[in-house]
Amino acid sequence: MAIEAGKTESRAPKIRLGMVGGGAGAFIGGVHRMAARLDGEFDLVAGALSSTAEKSVASGLELGLDPARCYGSFEEMAEKEAARPDGIEAVSIVTPNHVHYPAAKAFLERGIHVICDKPLTSTLEDALKLKAVADQSKALFILTHNYTGYPMVRHARELVESGALGEIRLVQMEYPQDWLTEAVEQTGAKQAVWRTDPAQSGLGGSTGDIGTHAYNLGCFISGLTLDELAADVHTFVEGRRLDDNAHVMLRFKGGAKGLLWCSQVAPGNENGLKVRVYGAKAGLEWVQADPNYLWLTRLGEPKQLITRGGTGAGSAAARVTRIPGGHPEGYLEAFATIYTEAAKAIHAARTGAPVDPAVIYPTIDDGVKGVAFVTACVASSKANGVWVKV
Amino acid sequence: MAIEAGKTESRAPKIRLGMVGGGAGAFIGGVHRMAARLDGEFDLVAGALSSTAEKSVASGLELGLDPARCYGSFEEMAEKEAARPDGIEAVSIVTPNHVHYPAAKAFLERGIHVICDKPLTSTLEDALKLKAVADQSKALFILTHNYTGYPMVRHARELVESGALGEIRLVQMEYPQDWLTEAVEQTGAKQAVWRTDPAQSGLGGSTGDIGTHAYNLGCFISGLTLDELAADVHTFVEGRRLDDNAHVMLRFKGGAKGLLWCSQVAPGNENGLKVRVYGAKAGLEWVQADPNYLWLTRLGEPKQLITRGGTGAGSAAARVTRIPGGHPEGYLEAFATIYTEAAKAIHAARTGAPVDPAVIYPTIDDGVKGVAFVTACVASSKANGVWVKV
Amino acid sequence: MAIEAGKTESRAPKIRLGMVGGGAGAFIGGVHRMAARLDGEFDLVAGALSSTAEKSVASGLELGLDPARCYGSFEEMAEKEAARPDGIEAVSIVTPNHVHYPAAKAFLERGIHVICDKPLTSTLEDALKLKAVADQSKALFILTHNYTGYPMVRHARELVESGALGEIRLVQMEYPQDWLTEAVEQTGAKQAVWRTDPAQSGLGGSTGDIGTHAYNLGCFISGLTLDELAADVHTFVEGRRLDDNAHVMLRFKGGAKGLLWCSQVAPGNENGLKVRVYGAKAGLEWVQADPNYLWLTRLGEPKQLITRGGTGAGSAAARVTRIPGGHPEGYLEAFATIYTEAAKAIHAARTGAPVDPAVIYPTIDDGVKGVAFVTACVASSKANGVWVKV
Amino acid sequence: MAIEAGKTESRAPKIRLGMVGGGAGAFIGGVHRMAARLDGEFDLVAGALSSTAEKSVASGLELGLDPARCYGSFEEMAEKEAARPDGIEAVSIVTPNHVHYPAAKAFLERGIHVICDKPLTSTLEDALKLKAVADQSKALFILTHNYTGYPMVRHARELVESGALGEIRLVQMEYPQDWLTEAVEQTGAKQAVWRTDPAQSGLGGSTGDIGTHAYNLGCFISGLTLDELAADVHTFVEGRRLDDNAHVMLRFKGGAKGLLWCSQVAPGNENGLKVRVYGAKAGLEWVQADPNYLWLTRLGEPKQLITRGGTGAGSAAARVTRIPGGHPEGYLEAFATIYTEAAKAIHAARTGAPVDPAVIYPTIDDGVKGVAFVTACVASSKANGVWVKV
Repeated sequence: MAIEAGKTESRAPKIRLGMVGGGAGAFIGGVHRMAARLDGEFDLVAGALSSTAEKSVASGLELGLDPARCYGSFEEMAEKEAARPDGIEAVSIVTPNHVHYPAAKAFLERGIHVICDKPLTSTLEDALKLKAVADQSKALFILTHNYTGYPMVRHARELVESGALGEIRLVQMEYPQDWLTEAVEQTGAKQAVWRTDPAQSGLGGSTGDIGTHAYNLGCFISGLTLDELAADVHTFVEGRRLDDNAHVMLRFKGGAKGLLWCSQVAPGNENGLKVRVYGAKAGLEWVQADPNYLWLTRLGEPKQLITRGGTGAGSAAARVTRIPGGHPEGYLEAFATIYTEAAKAIHAARTGAPVDPAVIYPTIDDGVKGVAFVTACVASSKANGVWVKV
Repeated sequence: MAIEAGKTESRAPKIRLGMVGGGAGAFIGGVHRMAARLDGEFDLVAGALSSTAEKSVASGLELGLDPARCYGSFEEMAEKEAARPDGIEAVSIVTPNHVHYPAAKAFLERGIHVICDKPLTSTLEDALKLKAVADQSKALFILTHNYTGYPMVRHARELVESGALGEIRLVQMEYPQDWLTEAVEQTGAKQAVWRTDPAQSGLGGSTGDIGTHAYNLGCFISGLTLDELAADVHTFVEGRRLDDNAHVMLRFKGGAKGLLWCSQVAPGNENGLKVRVYGAKAGLEWVQADPNYLWLTRLGEPKQLITRGGTGAGSAAARVTRIPGGHPEGYLEAFATIYTEAAKAIHAARTGAPVDPAVIYPTIDDGVKGVAFVTACVASSKANGVWVKV
Repeated sequence: MAIEAGKTESRAPKIRLGMVGGGAGAFIGGVHRMAARLDGEFDLVAGALSSTAEKSVASGLELGLDPARCYGSFEEMAEKEAARPDGIEAVSIVTPNHVHYPAAKAFLERGIHVICDKPLTSTLEDALKLKAVADQSKALFILTHNYTGYPMVRHARELVESGALGEIRLVQMEYPQDWLTEAVEQTGAKQAVWRTDPAQSGLGGSTGDIGTHAYNLGCFISGLTLDELAADVHTFVEGRRLDDNAHVMLRFKGGAKGLLWCSQVAPGNENGLKVRVYGAKAGLEWVQADPNYLWLTRLGEPKQLITRGGTGAGSAAARVTRIPGGHPEGYLEAFATIYTEAAKAIHAARTGAPVDPAVIYPTIDDGVKGVAFVTACVASSKANGVWVKV
Repeated sequence: MAIEAGKTESRAPKIRLGMVGGGAGAFIGGVHRMAARLDGEFDLVAGALSSTAEKSVASGLELGLDPARCYGSFEEMAEKEAARPDGIEAVSIVTPNHVHYPAAKAFLERGIHVICDKPLTSTLEDALKLKAVADQSKALFILTHNYTGYPMVRHARELVESGALGEIRLVQMEYPQDWLTEAVEQTGAKQAVWRTDPAQSGLGGSTGDIGTHAYNLGCFISGLTLDELAADVHTFVEGRRLDDNAHVMLRFKGGAKGLLWCSQVAPGNENGLKVRVYGAKAGLEWVQADPNYLWLTRLGEPKQLITRGGTGAGSAAARVTRIPGGHPEGYLEAFATIYTEAAKAIHAARTGAPVDPAVIYPTIDDGVKGVAFVTACVASSKANGVWVKV
């Protein structure tokens, strides 16, 4: 191997972690647990893993948790863990969207750090209330826009920041999937049921579930702030209660423009997140399914394929790279990077030390922006595509 | 080779061809001449190749034309060739856009078939007038939306027609280029100068030059008709007089939707035409830079890579395939296919025989639609993205 | 997500793990630790992490190990851990090759399961002696030919087993890298120094380090057994003491043939492991750098791109798949799968329960075959490429 | 378009061309005719297109040739055309291999230039005799190793010549196909019948038909000369009379090494010609199915994707590039380039002018090398893979 992999373990004591949601049948809970384990910074010690007390406890036992710390509800967990001397220092919230606000509030108010799945909340009102809570709390709030953890995404952002692309003109985002091409929610598939239920998901279907990821990532890489958007949000599958496709035109502050397409009804796309950024001097392209590559074309030079761990990947990528080029890292590694960035901030918070300025994770503000984006998409579309300020 | 290539030559006498435009320094004229030669159906015998009489004649001599048939203007060529017993049967018009209308009119009115570059005209008014002329003429009008000549594009269209995709929901078109990222028209580059000049190009810059191609191709493959669009058309390069980027949301008749992005300022994109079509049962994707491949995913089956000349390519593709799979055909072959389809129609017209119904080429109606598309994009954008019926 | 990810955690108590090698500056030690952590089945509790007692202990402390279990040598660790009631149940051996034999022997003889990096040993003599030890021991021996842990590799093997390819005719293996294109071992780079040192690596340079991986993988997927080989093994870089490139022609029992190319001097190849298998009815191709894809072409059908987690991936892949299609898994996940397969076998061994027959991991026999392969390559090459039985 | 395409037409009178072979049911004849037409330098005026006089004349008429110049045999054509004041200046020989020698001899001896398909002849004896004839003749001999006509192949060669790769160490060639996976020659498929018939093809099956292409291309790009080879040549399909797969290890003069694999029984490979060259400073890779791309990695720099017509393609590629980057050229264009290079040499020969030194085409010497390569492969394999000097 050309590269000696960085040490991935720290000597700090592991962070005691709880989890809300993520019981049997869940998808993202398992992902969070693997992400929390990979770099060895967290120890899962408590859980309120399901929506009923009984299933919650059963799921906790299944994971080998101490029965005393398998709680029937997040309220109970928040209260009891806060009271323990060895109580959890952080909690992962991996429930359907509508639970994010009350759950996060319960922990933040008790000074327990929150690592929360996206979108932030199911309504903009909740998002703003949660921001107020987070701003008041000493605890940290980390939103798992996990795609920002990919090394090549970090490198893309670093390239933009360095001026390598010149003034940014265009940010093109797309996130097509195909898993809701048919009305699978009517067959009872758990992932589909809650994601297409306004009461659990909020205003947005595809816009909330994946549009927010694409939007977050476009902003993360380009460093731009959205000014206004015009959207055509649509539901193709009969009987579906939330959107499954959206076309959005964007105007960023400073004059850049963009398009965003998200879809859950595009056969052949498993998880087709892709971001392209074009400036006056260069363009770049990153595709989530092949995340170890970043295409960069500087005007007047041949196209370059920059690889994670390879020549041409800069320090921002190297910070979050575990293994040499050619040995692919994937989705779980990027997700784990969000956890490990969070761990670095939590370690610092233990002692009041300053956080390494290189540490990056999505915050409550990114979360509010995401919910505002969904809200604006829906509003624009209802007004037949009028431009809406965000 | 697994496949015995079809005979590409016909026994019919070659079609006597003239050309308007395409003299020294032109790009597309040489392309038309190679396309006309490849399958051996045409004989270039006359030309009015440049905008001045002197350059016109010089260019004709350079190509080895009979000096007596090197004309100073298209008007002269139309008149004199129409009077010759061995006069041209067809003419290729490869000038800047604003000349298409008067030149095509001059030949159509004399019963000479016209093979014309796109976009049809520089204004919608000219387009409609030309349609009236063409509808009156016995001569054929062929528009060189050359990308419709690719075998895998034909196969994509055939798949949609066959119902393999189910009801079409989405048509995503993009056509990014990067050659106008800087203000190269200010350096005098001939291709850039006329393409950014409203007097020669018309209302649209990128929208007219490449947006029309993407739009035509999306409609060609999907079989859909546009209902309305909302556009954000923009010029990024200071001092440029026509648009160099456009974002367009589309609504097709019957409920399908789409996005179209065209750009000439996207570094890293040489000629990035791409069309994706998604239906209720399958999705497909075709990329012009790799034209021998068509991706097809039927819901619930693995992704297929269908290759030109390979198993899985159907009869519509086979009709226009020259060589076996794995031996790539390119842009000139697709362009030549438009010429050869035209030749088949012209051969039939000689005797009044019916044209083989499998013959496909873009018509004056496609041309009118293209100019209407550009006009609607510009109108929508001026009205801040309001939906405009096409 | 279309797929509900399988539960990755078991309820069984974690396996107490020790590690030999893998201290500061090592590459593969960190990989083993991440792999052991990902699925939560192991707990690293002891180590003899370096070649000197002092560095060994320092490295252990750095990892947060109990100081009492940071040992100065593997001999000490074997002895003391075997004596503890809570001693390690398994040990990972991640040293240079020449240490594998004595270290593995020390643990196997004490009934401690061994998870050992490849190649098995630095000499065939050691390999055979180690096999004798392993065969005598009740403890398990797992060799980390980690590439066999990739889901699409498992699927490839399953396809061959199912007869989908018909009788296998060809197995083409290649593993080019570029990190030794220059004499980096002369600059002191630790990874390069020991890998090019016959005393630490054994007979083979590129053949041992990566050729064994390619060979193992070709056999794993095809199910074939090598009969004989003819090799041209070479050192391109001046002063290098072991081979950095090898060309090998192979003949398998039953009549199939193959080529194997391994190289450390091929600029542009980071870690280019690739295996292609062709039978009378179909062919398949897998590339390690893009591990979530498997190309399958059944004769007379279009090429298929089968994706991990997607339609078309069978049960052997699903067993070792953590997350849905389109969410890429990488090198660490495949490595972790070897650990988790080992864990399943160790859990069974605790109680004497039978191991799930679906569990697969590389064994001591695979290791002996790998060393025999290297030995035969070198012997054939020394005899100017004569065919050598393996 | 960023690039103004070069003028493709010359003013010189067209070259009068005859053709031997290429009648009904042939594949490569049609390819030669398209190649001869594309750039407008040739005029096909005579033919002896089939193996019987009757079919020969019928095929000529079908192509619209003057009935007086549709000959029953190549001998007749050579004699009669040589006697005409407007007789052919050049002839394309596109028959099965065993006819190459007598046909080429007949025309060369009459001072008619020969453009001949590969491999040169069916035996090494014929090859050497033909070389003697060609050396004696004033007429030119051009061998259609058409893959050397691809612009990116020219660029690869230019890069090597420029020293960009440093000293060449490795040349890896492969050419897998799948069209003979089954015994299609037993179904009467014309292309398969003669290619598997020793009397018509010569000693080699896959080695002669495609191995020679791969070998020629590897030498063309690398500039190296083969010293010796060791081969394992095999026939997998029962009843087949010539090889359908070969594995070859190569040693070049000067110390470089290589592997060559050719196969006609590798399902999933339509026409998988690929060449990789590695030197001490850089590596490159070119794949025929995607011919507009060349991968170049300079040690210590990111991988570059150089495109035909794009930035980074040098003058050797530009000479033979017809259209801008992103507008793919294919197999026929590369083939046409061989014809057009030949035309340039023939134009010069008309007047005795010197040929532009930039003109490159494969010669009789390349042809002899190809037949020697096949002969050596077969000899080595018969001697169980002993190294054979070429």
